Amino acid sequence: MNLFTSRWAPLPVGVREVTEGGLAAGFRAGALSAGIKPSGKLDLALLICDEADCTSAARFTRSGVQAAPVMLTRERCHLGQLRAVVANSGNANAATGHDGYEVAAAMQSAAAAALGVGAHQVAVCSTGVIGVQLDPEPVVAGITECAGQLSAGGEEEFQQAIMTTDAFEKRATIEVALSGGPVRISAQAKGAGMIQPSFATMLCFIETDAKLEDHTAELLLSVTVKRSFDRISVDGQLSTNDTVVLIASGASGVAIDPESDDELRFGEALDGLLRALAIAIVRDGEGAVRVGRVVVHGGSGPHVERVARTVANSPLVKTALHGGDPNWGRIAQAAGMAIPDSAPLPVDISIEGMQVCVAGQELEHDRDALAVRVSGDEIEYTVGLPGEGHQAECFFSDLSPQYISINADYTS
Amino acid sequence: MNLFTSRWAPLPVGVREVTEGGLAAGFRAGALSAGIKPSGKLDLALLICDEADCTSAARFTRSGVQAAPVMLTRERCHLGQLRAVVANSGNANAATGHDGYEVAAAMQSAAAAALGVGAHQVAVCSTGVIGVQLDPEPVVAGITECAGQLSAGGEEEFQQAIMTTDAFEKRATIEVALSGGPVRISAQAKGAGMIQPSFATMLCFIETDAKLEDHTAELLLSVTVKRSFDRISVDGQLSTNDTVVLIASGASGVAIDPESDDELRFGEALDGLLRALAIAIVRDGEGAVRVGRVVVHGGSGPHVERVARTVANSPLVKTALHGGDPNWGRIAQAAGMAIPDSAPLPVDISIEGMQVCVAGQELEHDRDALAVRVSGDEIEYTVGLPGEGHQAECFFSDLSPQYISINADYTS
Repeated sequence: MNLFTSRWAPLPVGVREVTEGGLAAGFRAGALSAGIKPSGKLDLALLICDEADCTSAARFTRSGVQAAPVMLTRERCHLGQLRAVVANSGNANAATGHDGYEVAAAMQSAAAAALGVGAHQVAVCSTGVIGVQLDPEPVVAGITECAGQLSAGGEEEFQQAIMTTDAFEKRATIEVALSGGPVRISAQAKGAGMIQPSFATMLCFIETDAKLEDHTAELLLSVTVKRSFDRISVDGQLSTNDTVVLIASGASGVAIDPESDDELRFGEALDGLLRALAIAIVRDGEGAVRVGRVVVHGGSGPHVERVARTVANSPLVKTALHGGDPNWGRIAQAAGMAIPDSAPLPVDISIEGMQVCVAGQELEHDRDALAVRVSGDEIEYTVGLPGEGHQAECFFSDLSPQYISINADYTS
Repeated sequence: MNLFTSRWAPLPVGVREVTEGGLAAGFRAGALSAGIKPSGKLDLALLICDEADCTSAARFTRSGVQAAPVMLTRERCHLGQLRAVVANSGNANAATGHDGYEVAAAMQSAAAAALGVGAHQVAVCSTGVIGVQLDPEPVVAGITECAGQLSAGGEEEFQQAIMTTDAFEKRATIEVALSGGPVRISAQAKGAGMIQPSFATMLCFIETDAKLEDHTAELLLSVTVKRSFDRISVDGQLSTNDTVVLIASGASGVAIDPESDDELRFGEALDGLLRALAIAIVRDGEGAVRVGRVVVHGGSGPHVERVARTVANSPLVKTALHGGDPNWGRIAQAAGMAIPDSAPLPVDISIEGMQVCVAGQELEHDRDALAVRVSGDEIEYTVGLPGEGHQAECFFSDLSPQYISINADYTS
């Protein structure tokens, strides 16, 4: 694997990518096919931390319509004491009501029994079609079988079993040099490929052998998710199932003290890893051929945030990105839409470092040179609003005819 | 013309469509080609009310980035005393700064001089490519020439000159029976066809020979625009140029008193007309083959509004609509996204009158029958949120591969 290919998420200083992979120390993972995916591909995944005194943190979708496993994990787990994850693909177990909740509970209980941990230590995750009941029997049997096959090199199978229509794997193992010695972080993400006929779900599981206090895990995950998975859009649609879990085994024996230089270094490494994974999700957005980044600066925090998201979600900006079209008028239009009743709003716009609009009016520029710049794989847009002191960014995919064909097919 | 083809906007009771067309009494219109459109098609339009004591009202885009003609009309016109409209297609005169404002002012002055009215009585409208300066000379010359060619039957040419890539005309003339005799309302709209390479702009001009007080015109236009052009979405993108103008000539001699039965009848007729035009814009959305309507009810006004707009703008719902896919899970997902941090949100969903989801869980239904129902031209979705007393609706087009190809091409 070589995850750090984007100029927007380089490998942080003091960090190396462990190209041969492997989970961080203290973890085992595995997967099998429980027959949920009609294709017979891997669809059931287990992850266990073998250190009983591990710490953890988790983040979930904010949607008002949450899948049963999300509800269950939020309600029944001690989110700072997670030791295991059971995840399935092929069925999101969403919009499945009380019955679906019981299936999620059965998955949790089976994993807890098979792995010898408390049910409250098992996060449950699902991704796939929604509104269809998940048959618990083969899943529970699969969990029991899978629990006997876990290994420290099982992250590749684990990754494959959480994928749906992802075109490529999104995982990495990195090593971070700290004052007490090296620690490793491994992570596996999926998302932005659509499971027919449902919507994108992003899942990410992060394992580290560093020793973290639970509130340090919580703090670091909170900050880094805000700068990564919270800054991406394929189609602006919030999922019912989004889940991110971080577990720290402590198996390296290297402790990270709060507010230490090591905490900063570890945080930067985690930040770089999650940003690289997030950008990989955008790059794998259904039908996507290019990744855009919009950076908005100005004097109002809410304004820069709204403009960044409105630009990132505009189908007009996304089709222009697809077509290699430097259509800055659509950026201006999206900015105006994001801040209604503010006319005249003097926006500055640059594309790939070339300024094309000053105070809402075109600036003469070399169109031929710009056309070349927007034909690459990664295109950066900068929007300046009045004032200064605030900045927001979003990463987004283009909108292509393949997006339509992937999503327009009949459900059944 | 037969505008009233949608089941959602039938011809109101007491109203007949004047199929032979023609402007309401007291108006003349016309158009010519001023060379703005490279195709040489009509691109400059004039409308004049010959009654000096007419009244009017107008509505504009709320975007923070407003085109020069919008800024000029808002700043320099007496919006209750408009007598004329000058409009061009092929260039939106947006993001053109001070120079663009001067061009809009030159158009206004030329129209005022040629038509013998005050500049403050001339609304200026543009639609087309943005960020490109509009050459004022041929436009001003065209205005002078066009002013000598206006006629009571000029609305067809007028309509054509405000169209960009609209696939069909959107206009009608209706006759409303009032206690003092019949009055007519004529209207011409454009929109949702995209002008390459820019974004949709909707314009609508409404003429009536009823005699209205200016605050009645304002009230009626305010209410009916909220129920029509404010309830549609092709791609969720607010334009820089949206403008709606209503002028009442009074030439019929039939006055409409405030809070009278006649005002109610006239308002219902105007409402039906604008809703039919708004739905026609959605039907003509780029690449569209179907029109969706979502009706949301529940106990919170802001919630029903947000859910309706989120469903209408979801690319997942729109691709499902395109594919004739009754994918109700995407409706549930959009509802959950619209009301974050509200889980568990018990949503009820019906499609074409068939209930498919109760309290967030699938209700057994006849999938084959539903598949037939969603294969029509107009599909209705109903979403029930907890509580009652509030309702919101949106009309929206599907998302097709043609939308991409129309919008992904290079600017120049």
